[in-house]
Amino acid sequence: MDIIIGRGKTARRAYGIDEIALVPGTRTLDPSLADTRWTIGGIERTIPILASAMDSVVDVKMAGLLSELGAIGVLNLEGIQTRYDDPEPILDRIASVGKSEFVGLMQELYAKPIQPELIKQRITDIKKNGGIAAVSLTPAGASQYGNIVAEAGADLLFVQATVVSTAHLSPESVTPLDLQGFCQEMPMPVVFGNCVTYEVALNLMKAGAAAVLVGIGPGAACTSRGVLGVGVPQPTAIADCAAARDDYQQETGRYVPVVADGGIVTGGDICKCIACGADAVMIGSPIARAAEAPGRGYHWGMATPSPVLPRGTRINVGTTGTIEEILTGPAKLDDGTHNLLGALKTSMGTLGAKDLKGMQDVEVVIAPSLLTEGKVYQKAQQLGMGK
Amino acid sequence: MDIIIGRGKTARRAYGIDEIALVPGTRTLDPSLADTRWTIGGIERTIPILASAMDSVVDVKMAGLLSELGAIGVLNLEGIQTRYDDPEPILDRIASVGKSEFVGLMQELYAKPIQPELIKQRITDIKKNGGIAAVSLTPAGASQYGNIVAEAGADLLFVQATVVSTAHLSPESVTPLDLQGFCQEMPMPVVFGNCVTYEVALNLMKAGAAAVLVGIGPGAACTSRGVLGVGVPQPTAIADCAAARDDYQQETGRYVPVVADGGIVTGGDICKCIACGADAVMIGSPIARAAEAPGRGYHWGMATPSPVLPRGTRINVGTTGTIEEILTGPAKLDDGTHNLLGALKTSMGTLGAKDLKGMQDVEVVIAPSLLTEGKVYQKAQQLGMGK
Amino acid sequence: MDIIIGRGKTARRAYGIDEIALVPGTRTLDPSLADTRWTIGGIERTIPILASAMDSVVDVKMAGLLSELGAIGVLNLEGIQTRYDDPEPILDRIASVGKSEFVGLMQELYAKPIQPELIKQRITDIKKNGGIAAVSLTPAGASQYGNIVAEAGADLLFVQATVVSTAHLSPESVTPLDLQGFCQEMPMPVVFGNCVTYEVALNLMKAGAAAVLVGIGPGAACTSRGVLGVGVPQPTAIADCAAARDDYQQETGRYVPVVADGGIVTGGDICKCIACGADAVMIGSPIARAAEAPGRGYHWGMATPSPVLPRGTRINVGTTGTIEEILTGPAKLDDGTHNLLGALKTSMGTLGAKDLKGMQDVEVVIAPSLLTEGKVYQKAQQLGMGK
Amino acid sequence: MDIIIGRGKTARRAYGIDEIALVPGTRTLDPSLADTRWTIGGIERTIPILASAMDSVVDVKMAGLLSELGAIGVLNLEGIQTRYDDPEPILDRIASVGKSEFVGLMQELYAKPIQPELIKQRITDIKKNGGIAAVSLTPAGASQYGNIVAEAGADLLFVQATVVSTAHLSPESVTPLDLQGFCQEMPMPVVFGNCVTYEVALNLMKAGAAAVLVGIGPGAACTSRGVLGVGVPQPTAIADCAAARDDYQQETGRYVPVVADGGIVTGGDICKCIACGADAVMIGSPIARAAEAPGRGYHWGMATPSPVLPRGTRINVGTTGTIEEILTGPAKLDDGTHNLLGALKTSMGTLGAKDLKGMQDVEVVIAPSLLTEGKVYQKAQQLGMGK
Repeated sequence: MDIIIGRGKTARRAYGIDEIALVPGTRTLDPSLADTRWTIGGIERTIPILASAMDSVVDVKMAGLLSELGAIGVLNLEGIQTRYDDPEPILDRIASVGKSEFVGLMQELYAKPIQPELIKQRITDIKKNGGIAAVSLTPAGASQYGNIVAEAGADLLFVQATVVSTAHLSPESVTPLDLQGFCQEMPMPVVFGNCVTYEVALNLMKAGAAAVLVGIGPGAACTSRGVLGVGVPQPTAIADCAAARDDYQQETGRYVPVVADGGIVTGGDICKCIACGADAVMIGSPIARAAEAPGRGYHWGMATPSPVLPRGTRINVGTTGTIEEILTGPAKLDDGTHNLLGALKTSMGTLGAKDLKGMQDVEVVIAPSLLTEGKVYQKAQQLGMGK
Repeated sequence: MDIIIGRGKTARRAYGIDEIALVPGTRTLDPSLADTRWTIGGIERTIPILASAMDSVVDVKMAGLLSELGAIGVLNLEGIQTRYDDPEPILDRIASVGKSEFVGLMQELYAKPIQPELIKQRITDIKKNGGIAAVSLTPAGASQYGNIVAEAGADLLFVQATVVSTAHLSPESVTPLDLQGFCQEMPMPVVFGNCVTYEVALNLMKAGAAAVLVGIGPGAACTSRGVLGVGVPQPTAIADCAAARDDYQQETGRYVPVVADGGIVTGGDICKCIACGADAVMIGSPIARAAEAPGRGYHWGMATPSPVLPRGTRINVGTTGTIEEILTGPAKLDDGTHNLLGALKTSMGTLGAKDLKGMQDVEVVIAPSLLTEGKVYQKAQQLGMGK
Repeated sequence: MDIIIGRGKTARRAYGIDEIALVPGTRTLDPSLADTRWTIGGIERTIPILASAMDSVVDVKMAGLLSELGAIGVLNLEGIQTRYDDPEPILDRIASVGKSEFVGLMQELYAKPIQPELIKQRITDIKKNGGIAAVSLTPAGASQYGNIVAEAGADLLFVQATVVSTAHLSPESVTPLDLQGFCQEMPMPVVFGNCVTYEVALNLMKAGAAAVLVGIGPGAACTSRGVLGVGVPQPTAIADCAAARDDYQQETGRYVPVVADGGIVTGGDICKCIACGADAVMIGSPIARAAEAPGRGYHWGMATPSPVLPRGTRINVGTTGTIEEILTGPAKLDDGTHNLLGALKTSMGTLGAKDLKGMQDVEVVIAPSLLTEGKVYQKAQQLGMGK
Repeated sequence: MDIIIGRGKTARRAYGIDEIALVPGTRTLDPSLADTRWTIGGIERTIPILASAMDSVVDVKMAGLLSELGAIGVLNLEGIQTRYDDPEPILDRIASVGKSEFVGLMQELYAKPIQPELIKQRITDIKKNGGIAAVSLTPAGASQYGNIVAEAGADLLFVQATVVSTAHLSPESVTPLDLQGFCQEMPMPVVFGNCVTYEVALNLMKAGAAAVLVGIGPGAACTSRGVLGVGVPQPTAIADCAAARDDYQQETGRYVPVVADGGIVTGGDICKCIACGADAVMIGSPIARAAEAPGRGYHWGMATPSPVLPRGTRINVGTTGTIEEILTGPAKLDDGTHNLLGALKTSMGTLGAKDLKGMQDVEVVIAPSLLTEGKVYQKAQQLGMGK
C-alpha cells in the first residue's frame, strides 16, 4: 500500500499474467515425469483444469467428456440448460443472431424461468454417463435450488457470483445466503467464488469451502474492469489467496485448493497461475473452441443477458479441434491453445518441477510483454494490413 | 517529487484512470441498497453526474431531461445557444460539414457575437420546463455577463476555463475577474474550474466556490496534453483536490464537492473517479451519444473554434440510445456506456460501499491495462482486419 | 544508476517526452504576456525554434522566411544545396522516386562532390535577402570548409554529427577536428552537437561552444536507437545538459544555451522540452510540412544517403500550410502542429510562466501516455478499420 | 527478488531489449578503428555473429559463406539436412505449403528418421569447402550421434535444447547425457545451451563448456513464453551469465564466451546484447532473409515439427539481399537489418568502444520504447490503413 496516487490515497501495485514469466532453475525434468494430479472435494483428477460454468462451454455431454479425460466440467444450473427442455435450438439461435440484435435476444431467452425438474434431470444425465456432476448456482439460486441439487446427488456444487463475501447485505425482504450454514447443510462439497483477497479467501475457507475460485476482473479487457472499474490482476490475487490457503491449513490441517478463474487463454497462462500458487485453473474460452462445445464456436458470459446492465458480449472464438486435442493433444495448432496438459508438463519439465507443489515454488520474474512500435509493424504486416 | 528525470529536474509519478482498478472488500451489498445522492450548491441530486457545458451535449431540452432524471446539465452560455436565436440549423451545418472544412466553419460560426438577451432567454426556458438552470461562462464572460445571469435567476453558475487560478495576470488594459469578489456578488452558488492541484483547489474553495471542477489534460489523448504539454492524470488530480476539500472542511466546516471533469467514458471510469475521492463527475461524450443530444451524434470541445489556436476536433461518437438508457438504463449496449447509474450501484454493491462517502474509501490497486501483442492480434481479428 | 539489469550491470531510468506532462501552478497568465525571447551567439530571436539543417527542411529561401518570422533556419552545407548548382530538379527527383529505388538514388545523388564555391554562394544569398546565415557542417567538413564559411561571413556555424565528443579517435592518416582550436579560429560563434550527457555538454562548453545541441536517439522510433542501439530519451538528456549549462555559467559567467534537437513534433513537445531545461528547440519534420519547404512534402535525414550504412528513410509528411501558419498561426489544423509559437505562449500562460526561464521551472509530472486496448479500438474505428 | 506479486510470492524485475538503450561517453572513435574480433573454442573470428542451427537458416553452402565472411554458421544435425539425402525438394515443399496444412506437413517431414551417414557427409562437405564445421545436436542426439560427429571431424559441437541443465531427470529407461563426461570425451570444443541464470551458466562452464548460449523465451512474443510461460528478458539473462563467466575466469583462468541467442533482429539489438555482457550473438531470422538461405524467404523453429506440442510457426520473412549485404554491407535497406557488422562498428565508434570488451562496459539506460497512441496513428497512416 505504499504507492501514492495523490494526497490521502495510496495503492498497492498488482501484477498481471502478461507481466510475469517463469525462470528455469538448476534442474530439468523429462515432461513424462511431471505429476499433475490434484484433489478437489475428495475427488482426485489428473488434469488441474475445470471448464467454466458457462452455457457456451459445458453441457451434459461436455461434462462427461471432460470427466473421462481427467478434468472436470461445471454445469451452469441457471442458464439455457435448466430453462429449456431442449437447449439445442436455443443455442442455434444464439449462434446465428446478428450482432445488433444479440443483447435483446439474450435478455429475452434468459427471461424464461428456471425449471427445477430440469436441474434434477441434467445432474442425473451427467451421472448416468459416468461423469462427475459438478454444477453451479448463484448465491440466490443456492438458497432456492440447493435442496434439489442435493437430492439429485450432485458431486460438487459451485456457489459462484462475480464477487462473493461472507457478509452480504440484502434488502430487508430478502434473506441472504448464509454460506457457512449452507455448507453444513449440503451433503456434497461446496466451492465458493469469486474472491481476490486474503481476507475473503480465508473467510470462505472458514465457512467450509471445499475450494475457492479466485478471479475478479483479472484482465484489463474484463467486463468487470470496464463497466464497474473493479478487478485485481490474477497473479497478485492468486498469491494472496494461496497465502490464505497455506495459513488456513497450518491452523486447521485442512487444505482448501485455490482455483484461478478468469483471464486464462494459453498453456503459458495456466503455468503462470500455478507458479503463483494456484492448485488448478478454471477456463472458458479455450474450451468453447472445442468441436463438442455447446457454444458452436461462440462464447459469452453469464452477465451478458442481464436485463438492466448487460455486460460482456458474444465472441466468435471459432472451433479449432476436439476437446481431446485441446486438453491432452496431440496439438494441431502451434499457438499454445492445443494440448494444454502437454504444455503444463513440458513447462514443469523445463522448470524442474516434479509436481504441482513444486510448480508453485518456481521462480517468477517481472517481464512485461509490452507492445513496441516494431512489433505493431511486424504484426500489421503478418495480418496483411497496409501495403 | 522523488523521481529524477535528469540532474536538477525531479518529478512526481501521477496515475491515470487506465492504471487503477478497485478491490472488493470483505462485505458486499445488494445494488438496490447503494445510496448515490449528493449535493451541490444546496441542490440534492440522486445521480452524481453532470453533463458538460458543451454545445454538442447540453441545450435547453437536454437540461430539462437531465434534471428530471436526477442529474444536472450545464448549459454553455458562450456557444451556439447564445450566439444564434435558432441554434438548430447551425447544429445541422456542424453535423454535415466535411472534415477538411470543419475548422474553418467552426471559426466562422463562433465569430458571431454573443447576444445578451439570448442568455436570459435560455435560462428562463430551462426554468420554465422545471429544470435546474445550471449555466457556464469563462472568467472573461463572467465579468461581462455575470449580472445578466444573476438577473435571469440561474440556479448554479459554472465559471470555467481550461485552467483557472486565483492569481491571473492580464494585460494592463484588462481587469481580470476577482473570483472571491464575484462569488460574494452573485446571488447563486458559483462553481470554479478546472484545477488539478491541492493548492489551487484550496484557493478556489477559499474564494467561495460552491464546488470545484478537477481535470486538466487528464488523458494522454487530451488536447491540452498534445498541443500544450499540460496535464495531470485524473486519479492523482482528484485525490489531491479531495484532500484540499477535506482539509478545508476540517478548518471551516464547509464541504465543497469535488467534481471530476474529463477523460471519463465508461461506468468503470465514473466508479474509479469516485473511489479516488470525487463527489461527482462531469461527462461530455457519453451524453453526446444520446438521441436527444444537440450534437446529432457529433461531439466537439470549446477550444475547437479558437480563431488562432484551434484544439481538439469534431468526433463522430454516434447515437446509441436515449438519455434515459444512458443514465439509468435499462442498457441496450453491453460495453459500459449505458445505464451509468446502474453500473455505479452495481460497483458499489460489489465493493460493499453503502454511499458515495463509502465509495471514496474503497481500496485501489495499481493495475495497468497495458496493451500486449496478443491483445492487438485478437482485437485486429475481432475488427475483421487482416486475413 | 541504481536499477539492476542483471549481476554486474546497472542502469539509470531515463524518461521520454511521452512519459511526462506539465502541471499548472497557482498563477496563470494571459498568453500575450508570455515572453519567448532567447539569444544564441549574440543574436536575439523572438521564437525559440531552429529549423534543422536537413535538405528537406531548409534552403536559402526558407532560411530567409524563418529569419523574418523571428526564428532561425540552419542550412546544411554538405547536402544537395552545395553539391548541385540548381538543387530544384534534384529535389524533384527525390520527391518522385519510388520506394524501392529510394536508397539507391540517395546514395547516387549524395556521391557527387561538394562544390566549395556553392558554400560561399548559399551563404551570400541568405545574407543578401536579409536572413541570418546559420549553416551546418560535420566535424570532418568543418576541418575542410571552415575557412570558406568564415570568409563567406556566416553568422552562426553548427558543427554537428550524430554524436560529438571532445576526444575523437581517428585513423592515423586523419587529423580529427580540434573543437577548441576551431572555435578560437572561427570569427563567428560555433555551435556543437549532438550530445546527451552532463560531461560531454560541459566539455563542449569549455571548448567554446556558443550553444550545444542535445539529442541522440531521443525517441524509440529513432534510427540511432534501431540501427545502433544508441539513445537517451530527450527530457533526461535535456535536464542533464541544462545542469551542465547552469554549472558552467556559475563557474565562468558565460551562458551557453541548450537546444533540444530530435523527437519533437507538436507544440506540446516543445513546451515539455523547455520545461525540462532547454532554451530552444531544433525541429525538422514540422517545418518540412510547410508549403515553402524544399522537401516538397517529404522528409529525410542526413544518415539516409550513407553509402555503407544508410539509416532512416524518406517519410511523406505532406504539406499542411504555410511556414507562417506553422510557426505563428493562425492555425488551420487542430492537432498541435500549427501555430507552434501560439501553443508555447498559451502553455506558458496556463502554467504561469512569464518567460522561458520561468518555463524551465514549471512542475513536471510522470504521466505515461500508454496505449490501452480501449484506445486502440477507438482509434481503429476512427481510422475506419474493421467493420 | 524484492517485488511483491502477492503475499508469499516475490519476484525480480527483468529488462528486455526494447527497454534499454546505450549512452555515448566522453570519447568517440572512427568506426574503422573498432575491433570486433572474438574467439570461440580456439577459433578466432572477426564478426561476433553465429547463424542459428535452424533448417531455414544454415545449410552446407551457407556455412561456407558465413565462414568466409568471418562469422560462423551452425548446422542443425537433427533436421531436414540429415533426414533427407537431397533436402532441396523438401525445402521447396515447406516454402510452398498453405498455412492450414503447415503443421501437419512439418510433423510428417520431421518424422523421417535421421540418417547417421548424412551427419558425416554434411560435416565433410562443409570442411571440403574450407568452412568451419560447427554443428548442433540435442542432448539426446548428442548421446546417440556424438561419436559420429567426432569421427567426421567437426570443429565445434553445439549441444542445445530450449532449456539445458547439468541435473536432468529422465525416465528410468533412459540415461541422461552427462554433460561433463561428454565434454571430456569429445575431441572438439562443445558449446552448451540454452540457459538464463548465473547458476546454470556457471554449472555449464564447470562441465567444460567452450561457450554457453544464453536465451530462453527472451521476448514477449516467444513461443516459450506463450506456450510454456517460461522466459527471461535477454539483457537480464546476459548480464547474469556474463557475471558467471567473469567469476569463473577469475577462479579458473579460463574464459568461456557468452553467446546471446534469441530475440535479436536489428543491428541495435546486437549492440545492446554485447553492451549487457555478451561476447557474441546467435541470430536466425536476420540470416533467413538472405538470398542464399535455405528457407527460401521462410523461417521456422525447431519446436515447430513436434508431434505432440508443436510450437512457433513458419514466418514469411522475405528475401532482402545477399548474406554479404546482410552481414558486412554495403546496406541496401535503411532499417537496421543490413550491414550488421557496420552497425556494430558504427555503434562502437559512437560509444567510444575500441573492442568488444570496451563495448561490454558502455553505459546502459532504461528507456522503454513504449507504444503511444500518437505512434499507432502515425504508423497506421504510413501503412495506408484507414482513410
